[in-house]
Amino acid sequence: MSIVLAFSGGLDTSFCVPYLRETYQEAVYTVTVNTGGVTAADAARLQARSAELGAAGHYLVDGRSLLFEEHLRYLIMGNVLRGGVYPLCVGSERVVQARMTVAVARDLDARAVAHGSTGAGNDQVRFDVALQFLANDLDLITPIREHRLTRADTTAFLKKRGYDVPTATTKYSINTGLWGTTIGGAETLSTRRPLPEAAYPGAAQSAANPAPNQHVKLSFAHGIPVAIGDKPMDPVPLIEALNDIGMHFGIGRGNHVGDTILGLKGRVAFEAPAPIILIDAHRELEKLTLTKWQRYQKDRLADFYGMLLHEGQHFDPVMRDIEAFLLSSQEVVTGNVYMQLQDGRATVEGCESPHSMFDADVATYGEESAFWDGRDARGFCRIAGLQAYLAHKIRQ
Amino acid sequence: MSIVLAFSGGLDTSFCVPYLRETYQEAVYTVTVNTGGVTAADAARLQARSAELGAAGHYLVDGRSLLFEEHLRYLIMGNVLRGGVYPLCVGSERVVQARMTVAVARDLDARAVAHGSTGAGNDQVRFDVALQFLANDLDLITPIREHRLTRADTTAFLKKRGYDVPTATTKYSINTGLWGTTIGGAETLSTRRPLPEAAYPGAAQSAANPAPNQHVKLSFAHGIPVAIGDKPMDPVPLIEALNDIGMHFGIGRGNHVGDTILGLKGRVAFEAPAPIILIDAHRELEKLTLTKWQRYQKDRLADFYGMLLHEGQHFDPVMRDIEAFLLSSQEVVTGNVYMQLQDGRATVEGCESPHSMFDADVATYGEESAFWDGRDARGFCRIAGLQAYLAHKIRQ
Amino acid sequence: MSIVLAFSGGLDTSFCVPYLRETYQEAVYTVTVNTGGVTAADAARLQARSAELGAAGHYLVDGRSLLFEEHLRYLIMGNVLRGGVYPLCVGSERVVQARMTVAVARDLDARAVAHGSTGAGNDQVRFDVALQFLANDLDLITPIREHRLTRADTTAFLKKRGYDVPTATTKYSINTGLWGTTIGGAETLSTRRPLPEAAYPGAAQSAANPAPNQHVKLSFAHGIPVAIGDKPMDPVPLIEALNDIGMHFGIGRGNHVGDTILGLKGRVAFEAPAPIILIDAHRELEKLTLTKWQRYQKDRLADFYGMLLHEGQHFDPVMRDIEAFLLSSQEVVTGNVYMQLQDGRATVEGCESPHSMFDADVATYGEESAFWDGRDARGFCRIAGLQAYLAHKIRQ
Amino acid sequence: MSIVLAFSGGLDTSFCVPYLRETYQEAVYTVTVNTGGVTAADAARLQARSAELGAAGHYLVDGRSLLFEEHLRYLIMGNVLRGGVYPLCVGSERVVQARMTVAVARDLDARAVAHGSTGAGNDQVRFDVALQFLANDLDLITPIREHRLTRADTTAFLKKRGYDVPTATTKYSINTGLWGTTIGGAETLSTRRPLPEAAYPGAAQSAANPAPNQHVKLSFAHGIPVAIGDKPMDPVPLIEALNDIGMHFGIGRGNHVGDTILGLKGRVAFEAPAPIILIDAHRELEKLTLTKWQRYQKDRLADFYGMLLHEGQHFDPVMRDIEAFLLSSQEVVTGNVYMQLQDGRATVEGCESPHSMFDADVATYGEESAFWDGRDARGFCRIAGLQAYLAHKIRQ
Repeated sequence: MSIVLAFSGGLDTSFCVPYLRETYQEAVYTVTVNTGGVTAADAARLQARSAELGAAGHYLVDGRSLLFEEHLRYLIMGNVLRGGVYPLCVGSERVVQARMTVAVARDLDARAVAHGSTGAGNDQVRFDVALQFLANDLDLITPIREHRLTRADTTAFLKKRGYDVPTATTKYSINTGLWGTTIGGAETLSTRRPLPEAAYPGAAQSAANPAPNQHVKLSFAHGIPVAIGDKPMDPVPLIEALNDIGMHFGIGRGNHVGDTILGLKGRVAFEAPAPIILIDAHRELEKLTLTKWQRYQKDRLADFYGMLLHEGQHFDPVMRDIEAFLLSSQEVVTGNVYMQLQDGRATVEGCESPHSMFDADVATYGEESAFWDGRDARGFCRIAGLQAYLAHKIRQ
Repeated sequence: MSIVLAFSGGLDTSFCVPYLRETYQEAVYTVTVNTGGVTAADAARLQARSAELGAAGHYLVDGRSLLFEEHLRYLIMGNVLRGGVYPLCVGSERVVQARMTVAVARDLDARAVAHGSTGAGNDQVRFDVALQFLANDLDLITPIREHRLTRADTTAFLKKRGYDVPTATTKYSINTGLWGTTIGGAETLSTRRPLPEAAYPGAAQSAANPAPNQHVKLSFAHGIPVAIGDKPMDPVPLIEALNDIGMHFGIGRGNHVGDTILGLKGRVAFEAPAPIILIDAHRELEKLTLTKWQRYQKDRLADFYGMLLHEGQHFDPVMRDIEAFLLSSQEVVTGNVYMQLQDGRATVEGCESPHSMFDADVATYGEESAFWDGRDARGFCRIAGLQAYLAHKIRQ
Repeated sequence: MSIVLAFSGGLDTSFCVPYLRETYQEAVYTVTVNTGGVTAADAARLQARSAELGAAGHYLVDGRSLLFEEHLRYLIMGNVLRGGVYPLCVGSERVVQARMTVAVARDLDARAVAHGSTGAGNDQVRFDVALQFLANDLDLITPIREHRLTRADTTAFLKKRGYDVPTATTKYSINTGLWGTTIGGAETLSTRRPLPEAAYPGAAQSAANPAPNQHVKLSFAHGIPVAIGDKPMDPVPLIEALNDIGMHFGIGRGNHVGDTILGLKGRVAFEAPAPIILIDAHRELEKLTLTKWQRYQKDRLADFYGMLLHEGQHFDPVMRDIEAFLLSSQEVVTGNVYMQLQDGRATVEGCESPHSMFDADVATYGEESAFWDGRDARGFCRIAGLQAYLAHKIRQ
Repeated sequence: MSIVLAFSGGLDTSFCVPYLRETYQEAVYTVTVNTGGVTAADAARLQARSAELGAAGHYLVDGRSLLFEEHLRYLIMGNVLRGGVYPLCVGSERVVQARMTVAVARDLDARAVAHGSTGAGNDQVRFDVALQFLANDLDLITPIREHRLTRADTTAFLKKRGYDVPTATTKYSINTGLWGTTIGGAETLSTRRPLPEAAYPGAAQSAANPAPNQHVKLSFAHGIPVAIGDKPMDPVPLIEALNDIGMHFGIGRGNHVGDTILGLKGRVAFEAPAPIILIDAHRELEKLTLTKWQRYQKDRLADFYGMLLHEGQHFDPVMRDIEAFLLSSQEVVTGNVYMQLQDGRATVEGCESPHSMFDADVATYGEESAFWDGRDARGFCRIAGLQAYLAHKIRQ
């Protein structure tokens, strides 16, 4: 019998390895799912740390394609930004991590899965709900939450057994992935102050390479980004490239105060160049190609979709229904968007589509129209105002 | 008997003065409603032009306070930006212009009101619907639309009678008001190219006064902006001051492709520093003070509210109902927002409120909480995932 | 060159045949689309009337399957009842009639299509919008509306040419189709009185055959009705059979005051047994098989879908997107619903589904649960109330 | 120090009296809040039982007016029926019970409040959330849930102390209040069978007094029912009278499968004549007096409002915002509705309002209109179909 542990290499999940092994007397396997932030150096370090802590085996699995297919493409189609600003980085990553951790557990015929979340935050909900859905037949073990362990507790446990624990805790806790970096700590523990620029991961890059203004053409096919500047790319490398470009300009940094799943307010800082650029571009292309009512209903459904994904409810079947709506809506969302990248911001300069309703040769706004005449318009106006007129009349 | 004409001093409404007088053999009075863009020089020019064209009288009325009370405060409370970017400048101005033009017509006991809109655009709908609502007992005269007159037609008419007509038509048609400047023409007739920077009214200002980064504190009371940097101000001068500050940075410029009331796509460029800064600030303050569901429902209602106002449906009583919702929601939206103004952008640095749910001393996100413990959280997670789990089970 | 006329055989479309032939000197073909109300006797009468009036040919096409496939199945999936009571009979029929009339026009290589709608009602909008969409290259001719012809005008025109015109106009105008009968006239011209029972088409049937209570089992597969009382049936005959059964009980009669497309209020009486029974049954089955959020979002989208279909906007692509959502949601809506039919009403007695979330063996409401315990529940309650508690605290 | 117990006189709350007294060695006060179902005989029985069980005092408080003012009037304004059929009886009663129990606790300066809910159902959430909101400074004691006590446990406890316990448990658990009776047990533990007619409380009444058809006029002022048949009545006696009338006809009985707060599906039977009659009548009156968009937005907000009230979230401030919307919308919802009451059903026969948009003398649906002509209508149709046409064109 064995236990599979979702493993980040941080203090809490490091603690879990010897704790689980000692407590349950079973083999403990560690799984790290790379949703975008794991470098080769990170991978080596994770492998070594897992072995050092006594894990029976370590698995590093690449979750980036799954992240895109299951989540990011819908977040682009829906132009989903929480509170108008924050891309759904963490919420979608956790689902992929749960999925792939369970896949390893199935391969190993494990008895239980474990995660190192505390009882205070969002991630415990996302993991618990996903694991309950995916593997209700497996036991779920959450030592930090169950015993309300503090960092001091887990540090002491590890030190007592001779394991190295980094003494200086970092000022910020950072979560990096394909869809952005989320940063918490210090200033984000209240709402008054911004994070200093230097605290953003891309700060060194933008300072070292002050970029002149740059014009970038982004191409979409059916709502999916497919090329940067005429160079066709698969989604994952495209997003990685765009993150890299955007970081030179410091694009996509911000703060967000939001509602956590448990009801508290929480604040995060983030740096997410590719999501911000892609969503701004995609939204503009939709304005050319979708009807008013398509955009209206999409906005509502996508906002709700983002809320449920944020709250760990990815597996509610309503999410599949909304995805069917989104896919249907993207039939004509194909074309190019021209962006200007400048210090701290990306702006849409223009766009074009073979399916543009703007260039449909019927009429031009404000100009004479072949489609209707002034008499048609008068009739339209007369009737368009009837309900308000009647409502007014009955109030007199 | 007399006719009251909504008068901008442009080619079309200039044409209307002698045309109406000659056609109907009645006195024609001109009314210009200042919704924010009329300088003293403009006022003198309008007065003179009206007299020159043979109007029996000219009225300049100040619509700025009414614009704020009836429209702008709700657009701030609702964080309304069309398509995520464009403040509702023109749509709200037209309602105020219709209201105050009718008020003059009532004072003069006029027989008819007239406007110079063509049959191609949004404004005819806004004017017609409002005038039908406010003054269905008066005749409505729309010469340009009725006779499908072109600029060549109206120019010839005026020249034949010896009136001066500016020979060079301007490249752009510009609408300026308290809630922003909207610019159409040239590049906006297709979607591919942006407006050149020089075409924005604030361009000279920002070029002449390259501004260093500036930190601005904005204070709100019950959702209404009440002070800049500790200086209490009434709403109209506050917005004017903020427009002036923002113009130095080139803040609030952009393009928008939207759905016109008649169903076409239309594109505009705009420059609206105060609306963009105020809405960004206000939205952030709401994140501190409103519950998740308040923001969720507000977003939906406000988006719909913006759509109907854009489409000339301000007088539908559903708008009053939504305003009641918005007013109720703003009870606690009081506090300060700290903005940083930089070249081309404004960013929220932080905010504070006596009604902050963030600082409610109950718990801090991600930290130990006095409000619940890990066992509570486990229970919450277990139950939160039940529906998805059941839905999964019945599909197997 | 020829003209194809949508033909009901009533006064207005009868007038159109000779009028169009004389006015345009072209062959006029008549098309009647049977969306459910055309008997063999009706068919013979229509054929004869068309020939008598000088049509070059008459086409009777069966639109019932298309009506079900394109419209009714989505109205069932969405449980669509306007104003909570009225099935969307007429709105969906008009789209099918426009489609199939255009198909005949294409076969005949016609120059124009014509319909006999007045300028007062909903049908002109539905026909015009559909014909503009389907056949913008063909001319559209609407003589009654164009010349504002009254019944006296068209009667005189026909009598002058020796055509027989029924002298007594019927008290009620009746539209019969697969999805119900709609009745207008007399009492429906104001809101105070109900239609007398005898005015309902099924009245004779229910009076002649006073039915004892009857229990009926209805089976659905993926949201579509597939059997009555274990007898598998195709949708069209199933609906026809259920209408027949329900008429014996006087089920599905009612009044509805609604908003017409042009903004007026309008009132209709209706008799629609099958729609009322099917929608009540289907909605109950969904309560067993869909999650809370699926039903929540479905209700909203379906209400909007019904509004747009009512208003002639079937061809807006948002309708395709909503259909994709609805189809996705119906994956598990399979099972049996047990109805009791009594005088004037149908009630759901119970239902069962292989995909029931009710019988999922996890727990029974109000009983001890294997899925969570009291401690879990306490934690859930504690956290579920946090936002309201915080909101309260900040108001003190 | 003392404990205040919400007391229904049933097994669980009877157990709580001696249990709390023995466990905490404090005085226990019982509070019964009459939300509509407590007769004089019930009151006497409750008083005696409380004393017998050793309570230090018993309070019977009348919650009916508060129930109407805080909840029922909004449920009428919103036409709120869960799942299209079920009035929100229980959910709203619990809030009133919590409020008034806390009021007694404040008067007594109590240390704690207690309720007898199990860990399985909705009521624990409603009580916990409300008590946390209203009295977070008081301790909350829930013995049944905390110790997972069964009916056998509590029966044994009481018998051991010599208290009388009714031996035969009733087949159904029944909750009676002003807004209806909810019945659970036997058939409702699965979904296949209906409750037998005899199980409904009104069954004896309707069997004993087979009522002939009856016509009833109901009057509303600003959305509130104010008279039955020209007799002005206050809301509480009006609802009680209407319940009594409706019971003779067996009106308002039904089954409902719904989503419980904890995520399970649950089924109830109910009998609620007044709510069903009032909501049907009120909805029809709104169709005369509100615009299309008012009804559209009201339906959405009210459905959400019902969901949150059902789920114990009455105190979220979004509920106050929605109430502000609802109040605003009811300005003109004044008039009479004529209902026919028959065996098992109530139907709207007609209605009239001084604010009817139907009788506004502008035009009659389907007739010639003074407000627009055929040419206006053609223009309206042309433009109304433009977006769908453009969307079609770009797909070709």
